[in-house]
Amino acid sequence: MIIMKAEATEKEIANVVKEIKKYGLKADVSRGEYRTVIGLVGDERKVSFSHFAVLPGVKEAMMVETPYKLISKEYSKLFGMESEYRVIQVGNVSIGGNELVFIAGPCAVESKQQLLRIAEGIKKAGAHILRGGIFKPRSSVHSFQGLGANGREEAEEALSWLSEAGKKFEMPVITEVRGETQVDLIAEYVDILQIGARNMYDQDLLAKVASKNKPILLKRHFGAGIEEFLSFAEYIAAEGNKDIILCERGILPVGKGRNYTRYTLDLAAVPAIQKETYLPILADPSHATGRRDLVFNMSCAAIAAGASGLMIETHYNPAEALVDGQQMITPDELKEVIDACQRVRRLVVSTQ
Amino acid sequence: MIIMKAEATEKEIANVVKEIKKYGLKADVSRGEYRTVIGLVGDERKVSFSHFAVLPGVKEAMMVETPYKLISKEYSKLFGMESEYRVIQVGNVSIGGNELVFIAGPCAVESKQQLLRIAEGIKKAGAHILRGGIFKPRSSVHSFQGLGANGREEAEEALSWLSEAGKKFEMPVITEVRGETQVDLIAEYVDILQIGARNMYDQDLLAKVASKNKPILLKRHFGAGIEEFLSFAEYIAAEGNKDIILCERGILPVGKGRNYTRYTLDLAAVPAIQKETYLPILADPSHATGRRDLVFNMSCAAIAAGASGLMIETHYNPAEALVDGQQMITPDELKEVIDACQRVRRLVVSTQ
Amino acid sequence: MIIMKAEATEKEIANVVKEIKKYGLKADVSRGEYRTVIGLVGDERKVSFSHFAVLPGVKEAMMVETPYKLISKEYSKLFGMESEYRVIQVGNVSIGGNELVFIAGPCAVESKQQLLRIAEGIKKAGAHILRGGIFKPRSSVHSFQGLGANGREEAEEALSWLSEAGKKFEMPVITEVRGETQVDLIAEYVDILQIGARNMYDQDLLAKVASKNKPILLKRHFGAGIEEFLSFAEYIAAEGNKDIILCERGILPVGKGRNYTRYTLDLAAVPAIQKETYLPILADPSHATGRRDLVFNMSCAAIAAGASGLMIETHYNPAEALVDGQQMITPDELKEVIDACQRVRRLVVSTQ
Amino acid sequence: MIIMKAEATEKEIANVVKEIKKYGLKADVSRGEYRTVIGLVGDERKVSFSHFAVLPGVKEAMMVETPYKLISKEYSKLFGMESEYRVIQVGNVSIGGNELVFIAGPCAVESKQQLLRIAEGIKKAGAHILRGGIFKPRSSVHSFQGLGANGREEAEEALSWLSEAGKKFEMPVITEVRGETQVDLIAEYVDILQIGARNMYDQDLLAKVASKNKPILLKRHFGAGIEEFLSFAEYIAAEGNKDIILCERGILPVGKGRNYTRYTLDLAAVPAIQKETYLPILADPSHATGRRDLVFNMSCAAIAAGASGLMIETHYNPAEALVDGQQMITPDELKEVIDACQRVRRLVVSTQ
Repeated sequence: MIIMKAEATEKEIANVVKEIKKYGLKADVSRGEYRTVIGLVGDERKVSFSHFAVLPGVKEAMMVETPYKLISKEYSKLFGMESEYRVIQVGNVSIGGNELVFIAGPCAVESKQQLLRIAEGIKKAGAHILRGGIFKPRSSVHSFQGLGANGREEAEEALSWLSEAGKKFEMPVITEVRGETQVDLIAEYVDILQIGARNMYDQDLLAKVASKNKPILLKRHFGAGIEEFLSFAEYIAAEGNKDIILCERGILPVGKGRNYTRYTLDLAAVPAIQKETYLPILADPSHATGRRDLVFNMSCAAIAAGASGLMIETHYNPAEALVDGQQMITPDELKEVIDACQRVRRLVVSTQ
Repeated sequence: MIIMKAEATEKEIANVVKEIKKYGLKADVSRGEYRTVIGLVGDERKVSFSHFAVLPGVKEAMMVETPYKLISKEYSKLFGMESEYRVIQVGNVSIGGNELVFIAGPCAVESKQQLLRIAEGIKKAGAHILRGGIFKPRSSVHSFQGLGANGREEAEEALSWLSEAGKKFEMPVITEVRGETQVDLIAEYVDILQIGARNMYDQDLLAKVASKNKPILLKRHFGAGIEEFLSFAEYIAAEGNKDIILCERGILPVGKGRNYTRYTLDLAAVPAIQKETYLPILADPSHATGRRDLVFNMSCAAIAAGASGLMIETHYNPAEALVDGQQMITPDELKEVIDACQRVRRLVVSTQ
Repeated sequence: MIIMKAEATEKEIANVVKEIKKYGLKADVSRGEYRTVIGLVGDERKVSFSHFAVLPGVKEAMMVETPYKLISKEYSKLFGMESEYRVIQVGNVSIGGNELVFIAGPCAVESKQQLLRIAEGIKKAGAHILRGGIFKPRSSVHSFQGLGANGREEAEEALSWLSEAGKKFEMPVITEVRGETQVDLIAEYVDILQIGARNMYDQDLLAKVASKNKPILLKRHFGAGIEEFLSFAEYIAAEGNKDIILCERGILPVGKGRNYTRYTLDLAAVPAIQKETYLPILADPSHATGRRDLVFNMSCAAIAAGASGLMIETHYNPAEALVDGQQMITPDELKEVIDACQRVRRLVVSTQ
Repeated sequence: MIIMKAEATEKEIANVVKEIKKYGLKADVSRGEYRTVIGLVGDERKVSFSHFAVLPGVKEAMMVETPYKLISKEYSKLFGMESEYRVIQVGNVSIGGNELVFIAGPCAVESKQQLLRIAEGIKKAGAHILRGGIFKPRSSVHSFQGLGANGREEAEEALSWLSEAGKKFEMPVITEVRGETQVDLIAEYVDILQIGARNMYDQDLLAKVASKNKPILLKRHFGAGIEEFLSFAEYIAAEGNKDIILCERGILPVGKGRNYTRYTLDLAAVPAIQKETYLPILADPSHATGRRDLVFNMSCAAIAAGASGLMIETHYNPAEALVDGQQMITPDELKEVIDACQRVRRLVVSTQ
């Protein structure tokens, strides 16, 4: 990490970047209220920091050995980021700002009619962003894999429905990207690219989606510790894209016998992560619990824990959904959740 | 399980109980709005249910193979319990009723002066029950084990301080029982007997504390699934004591690398458990997170999830505490937590 | 699943396949000693099995709802596979047959000289297949990612060294494929394509590597249960490629405090998996333990548990390795391991 | 820890012990080939080590902050223990020496006839120690809890059968102690006291059994890390009883879906623990896998990993056993296991 003097010139900054590239590393230039800081991206062990320390405009040059640094709060404090959290703008929606953000929609897009009807419902309920899965990751190759599995044409058609529904009801849209070859196509149609829990460790996919310069929602893998989760978010930041929305969606349960929930929603991870990074973090109570009847309570709990918003699976008739019907709620129920969460938020923020 | 006819007489009930005892089993007689139900306690495989079905006053006799049944909601619905949850009365405090309950105090009792000062602080902050550890379970035999480790005399002295502090500030008191030989002594001085997470599986200890006919607070073991947790609560109920307060205090973390919290607070367990049993459930954000700076958020989150109250470690000067200083909050901070929780509670209850 | 009559003709089989494709599903045709069985690949819920049951040559048509079936032992017994386990042939090496197979080599390829020297060493030690990482999955973007990270040219050069070393010392070679865009390139140079633990859930990558018609070594994810592991192997089989070599490499540790091993090597998974599938299973004691001093014992233990071979990281000078030096052994130590394992194998096989 | 000079006199040693007791701590005096070392037992923070350093005969005085030290290899090396591992003698059986030790018998004692028949069978099969459960820890209060649950008389009768069977077939006997009130009774009848996995954390029970001066077999809790396991063994050593036999019996499984084994047998813990402590360690493949058909392989694997012996549930007719029938093997199968293990042991030892 190279800390520039407050008075360093653009030329001096450019020179440091040039020197970094000579080592085969990338440079992350962050300009803030106090100064410019240049993060080295890649294996720093081969770098001579004493060489950098004497370059014009450099205040300090040091090796940082933590697995994530570009997204760390310490880094943002060093150069003086304008606010404590990064606010990510998608259309007219701000994620990580004062207002909560609700992402809702069906687990899987099934038809244009289904999607439009749900989009209308969630909009009325107060949701901000429309979700809909087209390439579904599934534990069994013999389960329905989403319309994206039926070939490029059907995938593109489903994507166009999503885009159209978003425009019609004035909501940005998000869908999951499961493989590298889907990135270009999906990026044409959606506003936010989602990396699901199962793909969190897929560093090549992370680099590829990062390159589209669109916001990315990264879900925590169910077997990942918090440090690991942030280390893989760093893979996205390393490509120069810091519009990263983190999402806690439950980790592996521990213990014998029936568990009553699908995963363990790790809500303490929410404030713990907020102490570590300036990136916003959401929660997904639908996948975490796998139970419609727990969504209300766990939504309120996630907001009380400090989450910047929620991702909730919604369907007008959960019983007929092709995937995950047991954990979806209706738009009417969503409205109750959103209203309660808004009030919990105001209460918790005003108290702190 | 023997379901009696609505019009069954006391004599008929007594006869069924007598027949159950012939098999070497115990009988749990529950009288409700609808009828009387008699649960068999022990190994039912040797019982002839057809024999019971024809006894006078018996409506139905059937084997139930779930590991917990006396504490299950299904059981309470069968005989018609007066309310959805059992309200446990300790002095003038009701646990599991409409009002939240806050248990606070130091991890370990260190001196009379320390305890009185903390008791005064938490009372002012709005807490209802005073906690203080005298027999401390520790991972290392070379750590401070609480004043109880210094022999019966010192243990009794510390217990008398606890009792005195409770009386002075009008709060029931609770302390942890770690071994069978401590039960009689502790039961003389405290209002609620606590079984810590490490002892949850200790069925002989559970039976022994149950026999004192005082309310018992049972913490979930950090390696126990929900079904297991309830199955060990059933060991207490099987002794005829149903004044059981459950407490979620964090389970083993999953994942590599630094974890940032001591355990994983499983808040979805709170509403999930409430669907299974009529017993009240609290949460302990102090032990779960091991971090003072996360207690506020996780307290609010636990209440939003539906918990009936909290157990929070409190000390006027956490830095000088002999055990767990890093997770204690001050009485002033406790007041903020309690106030926020009360408002979250009202909000969540009014919305549902 | 469609079970054909023993006397079914090729025409009848082809007709069934044609009908399956009408549903948008793929057909897996397995011919054995007893009969031909046709597995449906994909979402069977939309299929009318009563329609298939009456087609000429069909004995039975039924829905199978397990997440893996094409790789299951039940399936292979149904059509009568010639042996209990599938023997996978790579050059002159048989995997899953009577002889144990040892895969060895450095964690990361660092230079041609390093690779040749290690290849010579492991060949003398008795290893059969040469491994060498070129695209390394790492928890930190700031760690050395393998020579593959330096661009296509360097990746190709490193791959050519691997291929050359394999030819020179007459060993098939294997390397890890981390992303979809690497598959075509890597498949030109190596004999076996490896999917690392972190990518086990990456179903698009699995489908892509499967399509190269080369044997695939699939490592179990450290957060995956056995059923899940097999369900993702099924993704490969579903593409028509059943040359799948499974590999147990350790799962997430459970419990507080220091753990002394990196992961938990789940050796009971070895015989448990052998009861479920006909695919061969290896073990990787290097990654599982992360400790050179445990490799000998855990290698012998894995073979005693029934593993068909081992993958062991080897380096002539572990101390100077760029990645994972603490878990590599020398070629001399490898020889001791292989010798001991061969004798354990003979002993265990002869006893059973 | 106080390291005495080689020439220190008994009087000087006694003086140091006296000084230690003034602090309310206990002293563990270990005499070896090189010198005498005195371990402080309890909370060392209140001790002035500079005071000890100047006492006559003292070479060095220092605080040791690890949770286990009395059982650590470093400690035994310091004073010069005669061999690398402590050999625990029970009757004519040595545990932890050159010869493997096999403990076998039924999960639960059901009748005298059953026990004698099994004892005869396992003796012929080559087992050394007879096990039989009388106080059974169970997940459900409604399951069979062992004959010990029927009152003191029946418990004593069952214990006398165990003792008689041991004498008749010349094998020491072992049974599980579940609660403090059972210790005195059980210690009258058996040679080794077993603490089951569920009670590993029960420090009061550990102290109580330690006081009987009989060897103790301590099973690892299924949620305990290795460091924790050893820290609780230290509770026994702290009472002056170092005849501790450790036993790995499987930890909590990780991962979704069916798991195929009951727990995860952590065999790498065997050699890892052997690097840390001089205490012998066994493995229990029966409880770990919960599957009779995996016992042979996992037994051989445990011995290959370095275990000093095994504990295996055995019954002449597993199908009629009241508890755990699905994981028991017959005496004939036990003979095959023991024979194979003996050969694996010779092979692995001769190679190292």
